[in-house]
Amino acid sequence: MKWFIILASFFYICFAQSAAKPKEQPKLRSMAEVIEQSAKSDWRPLNPENTVYMELNSGRVIIELAPGFAPNHVENVKAFIKEKYWDGLAIVRTQDNYVVQWADPNSEKPELKKTIKNAKPKLPAEFDSPWDTKKPFVKLKDGDVYAPEVGFVDGFPVARDLKTKRGWLLHCYGAVGSGRDNPTDSGGGSELYAVIGHAPRHLDRNVTLLGRVVYGMDLFSSLPRGKGPLGFYEKNQPFVGIKSVRLASEVPERERTNLEIMKTDSKTFLDVIQSRRHRPEEWFAYRADKIEICNVPIPTRIVAAP
Amino acid sequence: MKWFIILASFFYICFAQSAAKPKEQPKLRSMAEVIEQSAKSDWRPLNPENTVYMELNSGRVIIELAPGFAPNHVENVKAFIKEKYWDGLAIVRTQDNYVVQWADPNSEKPELKKTIKNAKPKLPAEFDSPWDTKKPFVKLKDGDVYAPEVGFVDGFPVARDLKTKRGWLLHCYGAVGSGRDNPTDSGGGSELYAVIGHAPRHLDRNVTLLGRVVYGMDLFSSLPRGKGPLGFYEKNQPFVGIKSVRLASEVPERERTNLEIMKTDSKTFLDVIQSRRHRPEEWFAYRADKIEICNVPIPTRIVAAP
Repeated sequence: MKWFIILASFFYICFAQSAAKPKEQPKLRSMAEVIEQSAKSDWRPLNPENTVYMELNSGRVIIELAPGFAPNHVENVKAFIKEKYWDGLAIVRTQDNYVVQWADPNSEKPELKKTIKNAKPKLPAEFDSPWDTKKPFVKLKDGDVYAPEVGFVDGFPVARDLKTKRGWLLHCYGAVGSGRDNPTDSGGGSELYAVIGHAPRHLDRNVTLLGRVVYGMDLFSSLPRGKGPLGFYEKNQPFVGIKSVRLASEVPERERTNLEIMKTDSKTFLDVIQSRRHRPEEWFAYRADKIEICNVPIPTRIVAAP
Repeated sequence: MKWFIILASFFYICFAQSAAKPKEQPKLRSMAEVIEQSAKSDWRPLNPENTVYMELNSGRVIIELAPGFAPNHVENVKAFIKEKYWDGLAIVRTQDNYVVQWADPNSEKPELKKTIKNAKPKLPAEFDSPWDTKKPFVKLKDGDVYAPEVGFVDGFPVARDLKTKRGWLLHCYGAVGSGRDNPTDSGGGSELYAVIGHAPRHLDRNVTLLGRVVYGMDLFSSLPRGKGPLGFYEKNQPFVGIKSVRLASEVPERERTNLEIMKTDSKTFLDVIQSRRHRPEEWFAYRADKIEICNVPIPTRIVAAP
């Protein structure tokens, strides 16, 4: 009995203490605060060899390529760029809440279409790839409707399935993929599209995604919608011309856009995610304490030229 | 032993039969086929008393109001419409992958702002409402990152929590809500916004949603993005003027847009959902067999005038 009292007292003290001294909560920070307080080492520059500049009359769109997920398509896109394939071609499709797509407007007309010189017109699909367990996968704990696990690898939202040991890029806002016809090897990168609406996740593993727009999305998303089926522009609608598409490495350094992307395997990026799960800003009356993968922003900033 | 053989034979026959005669699969239909084969009774006209026409220079945007979820805000929006409050006002904000917002550009300037006559400038929030168990809730079985249960009520994507017995409208593409400042009762419907990007579900239960754009979304989504903070237009960017906002019931019948919406509590709508979960179209190499609530299309069609 005595022991029981001693034990009970012991537990009482423990619980009373834990009630009196709640586990210290980390200070909740807004995303703006997290970014402001980030270290230089939380950011990385874009690799100019994997960075694409598309020049439109309205300005520059920048795409980061993902050779870790679609090595052959990325290599082929670079081959298209090096032969200046897209220069003078056009955005041929803008479908509301879905995609913009750029291609040769004459691709169906053998006598008019632009010749492909060194790039491959078709490639086997790279819809998913073997999961490399050494990849620094930053898992999102919030779950997902479509995939067993989602998270981030090297700045890209991805899913993985450890049962099948496969991983794949996700169709979030800004994702860039290679259009194709019914055969899965009928695309090769000559026709690319970017997501401009609510994430069409049913396209995951149906198309080879090969990159992500990291700057200039509004130049795509605000285009007039095509009035033809699937948002293709019709004859009475002018195409949006593409002045040029270049790798950043081909552009003189002084003409480059010095973008930095927050490292998605940094502690600071985890803080960004948390700042968006639980919004500390006074405006919020209800805090979701959950976040869906395509709602996680990947912070980007322009810095002074190196 | 004999019994064992008889039993074994019995099971063998059963299994062999079931292997030979697999359970008959229902024929998989595409959404186009489901819609084509739908009955007149699968569709409903919009109630002209709950239908808003916003006339822009570029055309008409149509919003269906949701009095079942935000009765006071809907009533107040109708009061604003009846006093022609928005006529001559403007879209003041277009933030990429987020919202367009319309309001009085001079709302902060007492000497210039438009007078509110009969509508209420402020209203208590209607972020969620008691869940009426008699509501014909068509539950989506696919799960959701943000809410315990999601589905459809009367043509609107909604969530419910049977523990708290509350329901609320969701911030899917096209959702229309009432902007507010920090106090939760600081909105009243004079400033409205529509979602033009990936569903900002963290806004659920933080803003009073009161309807959904059912026609003309592209007139909102393709607007030039505002260059100021939060996508507000800056001085050097012209506002997008609003010619008028009317209830359909105020517009002569011959000038109305005869829209019909598929009934979300119809068997045909369940078939639509299934056609988007499992895409039977030949193009698809991988079928998700899942669908996220904001990716479910609610079919809409224009019919001949009654």
